[in-house]
This record gives sequence, structure tokens and C-alpha cells, in this order.
Amino acid sequence: MATFVPPNVRRVLSPHLPLGDHREAPFYGRDILSVSQFSRNDLEYIFGVAKEMRAMVERVGTFDLLKGKILANLFYEPSTRTSSSFLSAMERLGGSVIPINEVTYSSVAKGESLPDTIRTLECYADVIVLRHPEVGSSALAAKYARKPIINAGDGTGEHPTQALLDLFTILEELGRVDGLTVTMLGDLKYGRTVHSLSRLLSLFVVRLNYVSPEILRMPPALVEELAGKGVSQKEFISLEPVLAETDVLYVTRVQKERFENLEDYEKVKGVFVITPETLEKAKDEMVVMHPLPRVGEISMEVDEDPRAAYFRQMECGLYVRMALLAMVLGKA
Amino acid sequence: MATFVPPNVRRVLSPHLPLGDHREAPFYGRDILSVSQFSRNDLEYIFGVAKEMRAMVERVGTFDLLKGKILANLFYEPSTRTSSSFLSAMERLGGSVIPINEVTYSSVAKGESLPDTIRTLECYADVIVLRHPEVGSSALAAKYARKPIINAGDGTGEHPTQALLDLFTILEELGRVDGLTVTMLGDLKYGRTVHSLSRLLSLFVVRLNYVSPEILRMPPALVEELAGKGVSQKEFISLEPVLAETDVLYVTRVQKERFENLEDYEKVKGVFVITPETLEKAKDEMVVMHPLPRVGEISMEVDEDPRAAYFRQMECGLYVRMALLAMVLGKA
Amino acid sequence: MATFVPPNVRRVLSPHLPLGDHREAPFYGRDILSVSQFSRNDLEYIFGVAKEMRAMVERVGTFDLLKGKILANLFYEPSTRTSSSFLSAMERLGGSVIPINEVTYSSVAKGESLPDTIRTLECYADVIVLRHPEVGSSALAAKYARKPIINAGDGTGEHPTQALLDLFTILEELGRVDGLTVTMLGDLKYGRTVHSLSRLLSLFVVRLNYVSPEILRMPPALVEELAGKGVSQKEFISLEPVLAETDVLYVTRVQKERFENLEDYEKVKGVFVITPETLEKAKDEMVVMHPLPRVGEISMEVDEDPRAAYFRQMECGLYVRMALLAMVLGKA
Repeated sequence: MATFVPPNVRRVLSPHLPLGDHREAPFYGRDILSVSQFSRNDLEYIFGVAKEMRAMVERVGTFDLLKGKILANLFYEPSTRTSSSFLSAMERLGGSVIPINEVTYSSVAKGESLPDTIRTLECYADVIVLRHPEVGSSALAAKYARKPIINAGDGTGEHPTQALLDLFTILEELGRVDGLTVTMLGDLKYGRTVHSLSRLLSLFVVRLNYVSPEILRMPPALVEELAGKGVSQKEFISLEPVLAETDVLYVTRVQKERFENLEDYEKVKGVFVITPETLEKAKDEMVVMHPLPRVGEISMEVDEDPRAAYFRQMECGLYVRMALLAMVLGKA
Repeated sequence: MATFVPPNVRRVLSPHLPLGDHREAPFYGRDILSVSQFSRNDLEYIFGVAKEMRAMVERVGTFDLLKGKILANLFYEPSTRTSSSFLSAMERLGGSVIPINEVTYSSVAKGESLPDTIRTLECYADVIVLRHPEVGSSALAAKYARKPIINAGDGTGEHPTQALLDLFTILEELGRVDGLTVTMLGDLKYGRTVHSLSRLLSLFVVRLNYVSPEILRMPPALVEELAGKGVSQKEFISLEPVLAETDVLYVTRVQKERFENLEDYEKVKGVFVITPETLEKAKDEMVVMHPLPRVGEISMEVDEDPRAAYFRQMECGLYVRMALLAMVLGKA
Repeated sequence: MATFVPPNVRRVLSPHLPLGDHREAPFYGRDILSVSQFSRNDLEYIFGVAKEMRAMVERVGTFDLLKGKILANLFYEPSTRTSSSFLSAMERLGGSVIPINEVTYSSVAKGESLPDTIRTLECYADVIVLRHPEVGSSALAAKYARKPIINAGDGTGEHPTQALLDLFTILEELGRVDGLTVTMLGDLKYGRTVHSLSRLLSLFVVRLNYVSPEILRMPPALVEELAGKGVSQKEFISLEPVLAETDVLYVTRVQKERFENLEDYEKVKGVFVITPETLEKAKDEMVVMHPLPRVGEISMEVDEDPRAAYFRQMECGLYVRMALLAMVLGKA
């Protein structure tokens, strides 16, 4: 939030408010930067709004809640999935979008700072969604912006809306979060989605299993942080011992680009592949999730299994992002 | 069309229907993949709707027939013309668009399959327009999609909406199709537009002349296919013998990139150039068409001739695409 | 304006009108190509509409003045700032946008001429905003177009909407233009913004100071042109002698790419940097402006000074562009 407001600027739209200032409209004017900003009550509120969004979309497709509002969808890194999801969320709420995908070719290439770009865009838009390769970029943007910033991924940092949609999917699929056993599989060292999701899950009573190759284990610091919050955690090198008790199997992609040498990658890729045979030993009432895109770590035959929830997970992303946009613009 | 529907997915929008299932709303929920899917009755229906679209655009510019609907405009290859045309069509119908032009830099670059990309996008959109460099990509997309797919060009395969707008232009310009002599000029070997258009024309009583250099003749298999449908066809190496009898002169670009060696290209480029002098020997009541872009094969002086229909052809594209979008979304 | 209109084209939207033809709706159907097309009366009219736009945006955010109209935002060169500004302007007026940013990869790469691209796009849009690297491209486009063209920068040529927003900002910040002392600082040789702004200022009674390094002086031909209009002009090599009398300090970026050798650039970069200390000697009632992006020529500490008007200047751009779009479409 900017500390300085030029005296002769007349404010057009909602001012930034300090956290928790508006009891009637929680999140109005606030930034969405990190999963650590949410309490359990916040999550219940967000998911309540997301459920309403789902109901409205199913009934009427689109409605005019944010008619007249403009979203600047500012992506310094390409991400078709996330940018399309925010774009659709804004359009289904009747708002408009300034899509900025080619930002690296533009002002930025001329050396403009992120704060300047943000302060320019907020002249044109009412809310800014930001994807940026550097950790902390969203917090930097929010420091200078008068309009709300939604972090859509800042490098290896945070991607809070992904974690929110993951948790909302669990709730929609299984009806509850407390009491569940969540097994995270694959690249647990570099995957920011599993880090953020595990932090959100720590607000609930869950058991977490981490299944990964030795070199891709969950960061010890994070394990310790979660232990400090009383989360029950166990680590494994294969899925077999925990599959039968698993309610949510959260699969992540082993990204080649994360590895320093190709040999390490070749060793682990393909070891953690989910097939219909894998799921034979799983519960009937469980779900397989994945942040997508996948590249072979879940075989396409699994898609036809009712427990394969990853495309429904994408849809949940739409409702959660609709909820967040409506909330920060004071319309939820 | 997907064979599997997860039991706990609540359907938001129109389900895919088998061909011809909805007599009250033909094409509702259907894919537009190939010219071979259309009967003469279908064409009459489509062109009737396109005429209504033209009348509405002329009267009010834009209207809210598809308000609340979202089009994902997914272009793996750039095509300003086609993507702008679909975008405008959707916006003139009051709908919204998710424009995706930089797809090669994104999820796809990470190795995601086309079916996964499609199944993600259909979480956010109501209809998907797909341009893709590989033959059969639209059919593959349609196999997995629950929402309608419109093929906007799949490599050297099909570009059905181009053929439909070509035929609609002939109808709008000359008032009929039966009885016409259509002369196709230029690259008849590699040009998918002439292949698709000739197939559509085979549903009518027309005479086709093919004028091309020897190495760019119409594919013999296609000539045979059309002959089997009773189409009268003749081949020439110059325009002169057939110009006077021609009602529609369909000019195509000789694309450098189609040639395996540059010498072959240099031999033919420039031989088939249309100038005002060329048209002196043509009928008063005829039209010159071109799918555009042109690079010299029709000189700019021809643009002022009332018979030059290629820019009006572009406009017809708008009305045909509006018709198709409205139809597959059940609103025509 | 095209000289030829095909007889069987039914006109959908407003025809191009000769300059000054519509006294009730000035600028209706006209192109915005150059600052030299505006009289002082024109400017007063434009700024009056821009003020109304500001009032409406502040009151309701967005309104439906241009509902049903489509803007083709055609950028051959990337410019996040300018393209976002036009996009937001059109959306705040309830209109739709066809954003075309990747044009170099597309038809144009296949060799299509600018007139053909324009004549294609005007089949889909009601007004075209054009950014193009070549001087005179907008005039060329306007020659062939039936729909209004707005020049958003043609190489080292003109960028009239930037000059209009600069002048509107002065008016909004200081309440008048006549009688002011305007000091232009930095790269006065290559910067088209200072050239265009000084031409617009010549319609008012102002004093102009030019402060630049020797090799970046205001072009003598322009100085002579303005002298011929009775403008009082003075040149300096440092800001010090004129700062105290300055009402408007217009700072421009010294662009590395303008220099033929790097040594010349290194000599001047950093010499003309504005800091809080610089402004200690300036009036209380003055403004610092900058077309942005900046790369260090105004330090970020200056942003908190109420006289720093450059972000408010960006906002003024929105209102001016809303005004121009509404005017050329006959709705102002």
C-alpha cells in the first residue's frame, strides 16, 4: 500500500484498507499475497463465496456483479492455465480484462521498475493479478499499489490462489477437510504448490504423507514449521505403504528444469507414475489431484476413473478466483 | 466428445449432443470440424442465419445473443485475420473471449498434451476455436471435449469456416451458386482453401476450372473424388481460355514455404498475377475472390474494381462465424 | 479515406466524413493522425469531453456510451502502457477490443501490406488504433480505411494522443495553459513527445525553456517553426538558471538506443537526474511531468512530492483517449 497519496488525485475506486478493517466486507481492498495471511475463518468465508459462485455459474453462466470493473492480468511469465482462469473469472462476473502477456517485450525491456509498471496499470484497472518470476515481487507491487494485488505466482515463492483452489477442491470432492489423510507425491522439494497447500492444511486436523525420491524430499524447514503447528507428518520413498489409507493423493510433476544435472532427473522420472493399476489398491472414496500440466506422471487411462479430480480441480480454480476478485473489489 | 463423465461433475452448460439430435436447434452442441459434415440443407440453414447476422450487425452493430458465453480462442499458430474474425464475431454477439495466442510459450512448451489443454480450457469457456499446425488436431480435441470445438485450421488439413465464408460470399455477391462457373487459380496443390471450397461446391451444380502451373495442379485424388460426385472439372495452364465464361475467379497465393526448392518458386511466382488489364476480358457480372493475405498476386489497382470482392469476403467471414458460434451454443 | 466504395457493400457503421463536416458532432468519423490537425478550439472541445469522462469514471467507473462498438488495437511495436490505456478507455466506455500485439508473427510476416491489414480489420472493428514503427504509417492507413484511424505512434513521427494527454494534464494540474513557463529537459533531439507537445503549446501563450546536453538539442528546424508562431524559446545546458521560474518541468528519458555510440550515451546519462534536492529550488505550485517509462532520470524519492504529476499524467491519458474514442465514433 502506498504511504503517499498526492493531494490532488481524486480517488476513483475503493481505497486500500488495512487488514480486517471492514467487518461487513472482509477482504475489501486487500491484497492476496500469501497463504499465511488466511485464518481458518477466512478460508471458510472464501469457500462460502466460491460455492455461491459455482451455484451462480451453473444457473446463469455469467452475471454482472463486477460490471464496470477492470482487471489488469499482468503476466511476466507465460501461464495459459492461470491467466485464462483469472480472465474467465473476471468475464463471468461481467467485468473486463486488460490482458498483458508480452510484458517482457515492452516497457519492462526498456528498464522500467515493477513499481512504476504497477502504478501505471492501476490508472487503468481496478485490480491487478500479477505473475512474476521473482520471489517477493507481489509484496513489492502491493507496497506501491493503491489497488488490490493478487499474487498469481512469484517464482519459487508463493502461488496462494493455487493452494486455495486445491483446498476448495478437497472440500467440494470429499465434503470436509478435518480428519483426512493427504498424501503428496513427486517433487516435494521444489514444488511450491505442495508447500503452500501443506501450510493451508495445517489449519485443519489432517495427516500428511510425503512420498518422494530421496533428492526431492519436503524441505526440512517446512516439515519442522508444520510440526510446530501440530501437524502429523510422515515421509516415504514409495506410495505403496500409504495408498490404502489415503483420502487425497496429490501428485506433482517432476520438472526437468528444477534439476541441476540430467542424470538425477532420469533416475526419478517415471518412477512415480499413477496408472489404473495403482488405483486398484486405493479407497473407493478418495481423489487424485494434480496442479497440471502433467507430463506423464498420471496416465491418461486414469482420467476415466471417477476419483480422478484434476480437471474438476481446474474448474474449482474458476470459482475460487471469482470469489477472490469479487471480495477484494467489495462485491462479495 | 468425451466418453466418460465424472459422476460428481455438475454440468454448467449445454452438453454435447449427437449429430442431428436436436431438430429445433440444429448444430446445438456440435463440433465444426470439416466441410464434409455439411449437407446442402445444412449450408442453407447456416447461410440463412449468417444473413440474419448481417442484417442485425447493419442495424444495431452488436447485440446480446451470446451474453454470458465465453469463447476460448486457442491459436497455436498466429493468424491475425482468423483470430480477429472470431473475436469480433463473439464480441458482436455480446459474448466474451479468452484470447490465447502465445500458447507455444506456455503449458504446451512444458509438454502438455492437446487433450489436457482442451479439457482445462473447457472449464473456463463455453466453446473453443482451435487453430493448430497438425492435421487431425481438431478431431482429437473434439474427441476429448465436452464443449463444442470449431476448427479454425489444422495444418494442411481443413479450414471449414474459410470454405463456408467463401461459399457465403458467392451467394451474397451473385445471388446463387447453381449454374455458376468457378475458376480456381494459383496454387491448387497445397492450398487447403481451394480443396475445401471445391468439396462444398460439389453439393451444387457448378462447373470448375483449375488454372495452375504444372507442379501446382489440383491433387488427382481430389479431382477423382469430385468427378465421382458428378462435378464438371477442367484443367488449364493459363487463365485466358476460361476467363470470359468465369463467374467466380478464386485466386490463391503461391506460398514460398510450400516449395521444396526456391527455383520452383521463382518459376511460378508472378505468372498468375491479376491486373486491371486481366479483368478487361472478364464478365461485368463476376467476382474476384481471394482468401487473403495476398502478396502481389492481385495488384492493388484491382481493388477499385467493383468486381473485386475479397474485402467483402472478409466481412462475410464475420457473419458466418457469428452464425456458427450462435448455432453451436444453441442460440440461432 | 478510401476513394472507392464497392457498390454492393452495405455500410454498417459511421462513414468517414470530411473534416469539419458535422458541426453537431465534431471529429465524428475523423482520423486522429497529427497534433497539427488541431486548432485551439478543437483542444478546448477535446479537453471538455475528457473532463466529462473523468467525472463519469469517478462517479460510476464504467458506462455504456460505446456499447456495441469494437476497437482494433493494432500494435506492430509493443507498448504495454499505450495499448493498455486505449484498451481500458474502450472498456470503460462499454465497448469491446480486439487486441493485436503479435502482428509481426502473423499475416504481416507473410508479406501483407499495411493497407490490406487495415482493410481486413475494419471489416471486424469500428475504429482502429495503430502503433507502427514507420513514419507516415498512420496516414497511409487512414488513406485506405473507411473507419477512423487513431495514431498511437508512428516511429519517430507523431504520437498525438500523448501530446494531448500531456497538455490536458497541465490544464488539470495548474488550471490554465496561457502564461505558463514550460521547461523541457533531457533528450530534446530524438524525443517525439517534446516535439509534439511544443507544437501544441504554440497554440497558447507560453514561454518554453529547452534544457539538454549539446548533442541532444531541440532540432533547429522545430525551434524556427515555433519562433515563426511567436513562441518565446530559450536554450540551456543546465536546469539551474530556469528552475525557479518553471511552472511545468517536462522530463524525458535519454534513450540509449537513440545514440550511435555508447560513449555519447555514457557522457549524458545521469547528468539530468531529478531528485528531491533538485525540487527544493522549484516553486510550490509547479508540476514535474514525464511521459514514462523512466529509467532513473527521476529518482523514486520524488514520487512522494505532491508536485510529481507523472502518474496522474498516466491517468489523464485514460480520459483523453476515452474522449477521442467517443468523439470519432460520434458519441461525444
